[in-house]
Amino acid sequence: MNFLEDRIVKEGSVKPGGILKVDSFLNHQLDIALLEKIGREFTRRFAGKPITKVLTIESSGIAIAYPVARELGVPLVVAKKSHSVQLNGEVYIAEIESYTGKTVHQVVVAKKYLCSEDRVLIIDDFLANGCALQGLISLVDAADATVVGLGIAIEKGFQEGGHRIRNLGYHLESLAIIDSMDAESGVITFRQQP
Amino acid sequence: MNFLEDRIVKEGSVKPGGILKVDSFLNHQLDIALLEKIGREFTRRFAGKPITKVLTIESSGIAIAYPVARELGVPLVVAKKSHSVQLNGEVYIAEIESYTGKTVHQVVVAKKYLCSEDRVLIIDDFLANGCALQGLISLVDAADATVVGLGIAIEKGFQEGGHRIRNLGYHLESLAIIDSMDAESGVITFRQQP
Repeated sequence: MNFLEDRIVKEGSVKPGGILKVDSFLNHQLDIALLEKIGREFTRRFAGKPITKVLTIESSGIAIAYPVARELGVPLVVAKKSHSVQLNGEVYIAEIESYTGKTVHQVVVAKKYLCSEDRVLIIDDFLANGCALQGLISLVDAADATVVGLGIAIEKGFQEGGHRIRNLGYHLESLAIIDSMDAESGVITFRQQP
Repeated sequence: MNFLEDRIVKEGSVKPGGILKVDSFLNHQLDIALLEKIGREFTRRFAGKPITKVLTIESSGIAIAYPVARELGVPLVVAKKSHSVQLNGEVYIAEIESYTGKTVHQVVVAKKYLCSEDRVLIIDDFLANGCALQGLISLVDAADATVVGLGIAIEKGFQEGGHRIRNLGYHLESLAIIDSMDAESGVITFRQQP
């Protein structure tokens, strides 16, 4: 087990409906030392690829993408979930269906922060059905920029998102891939990774 | 002018209705080097005070609070704007009226992440009417914890929030306090700080 899988086993809890709670270290109370480690691991996995921007989506992607952008020395662009009054002007828009919320919402990025020369590393906390990632990919595509890779903290390998995105030819790195998890026993099985 | 005021003058833009856009470096595209500098400055201003947690509110507070929590070596607790399915269980709830959105929403923190021994530094990006900060203060109060101080990147000094919170006796540090700004001329006047 790697450091993240280890932490998931120690502190994560499985809830009915395919929900994994990692509130104590990843998305409500944040363990900064762990996030720094995640940042360094992504930097290592995408080393040697020219990257000009890190792109994530508010809000739980931000703290994972922050150390990655810092290590790479590039700006972090945060896609916004609501088209607020602050963002009037030219924006790229994608529609995303949330897994837990069971709602469809728009995600937007101001056009001036993604251009055709950009080589973008997409970072997010969870990958399940892949809708959020596909939304982020479509924002990069809309800007005629290049998706260099996608880094995910926790992938639910028993849902189709990861499979679908790898099939499209993208370089997707998930630090922990859960092949199965059981709400009753609490048992979590991770996919073996090289 | 300090480094943040300088950046606001260079890249911020004033919109009608008391709106300051700092999209290019603070809350849509993030300049990590600037955020690191903000983090170090807050750490300096609250140096010597025992702090056990940093508390912020999603989503634009996260990237400002991250380097502060890292420098202090404490967990970062992110108050959530919606009471999602992920947060069922015991929570503290406060009501916050948003300035730009003109809506009232709840902000919640799971009870297990704030306890009476906690000494909390509250960090956020903007301070205008003070509703968000007062909501965060009330979450800390509900936990019987102590507010050690509040650190804000940009305070709109022409609104009542900062005055109100200082009057309550809190140690509030704002890196840039805007005394006036004019949408037509674009002129921004900062309050002189020691």
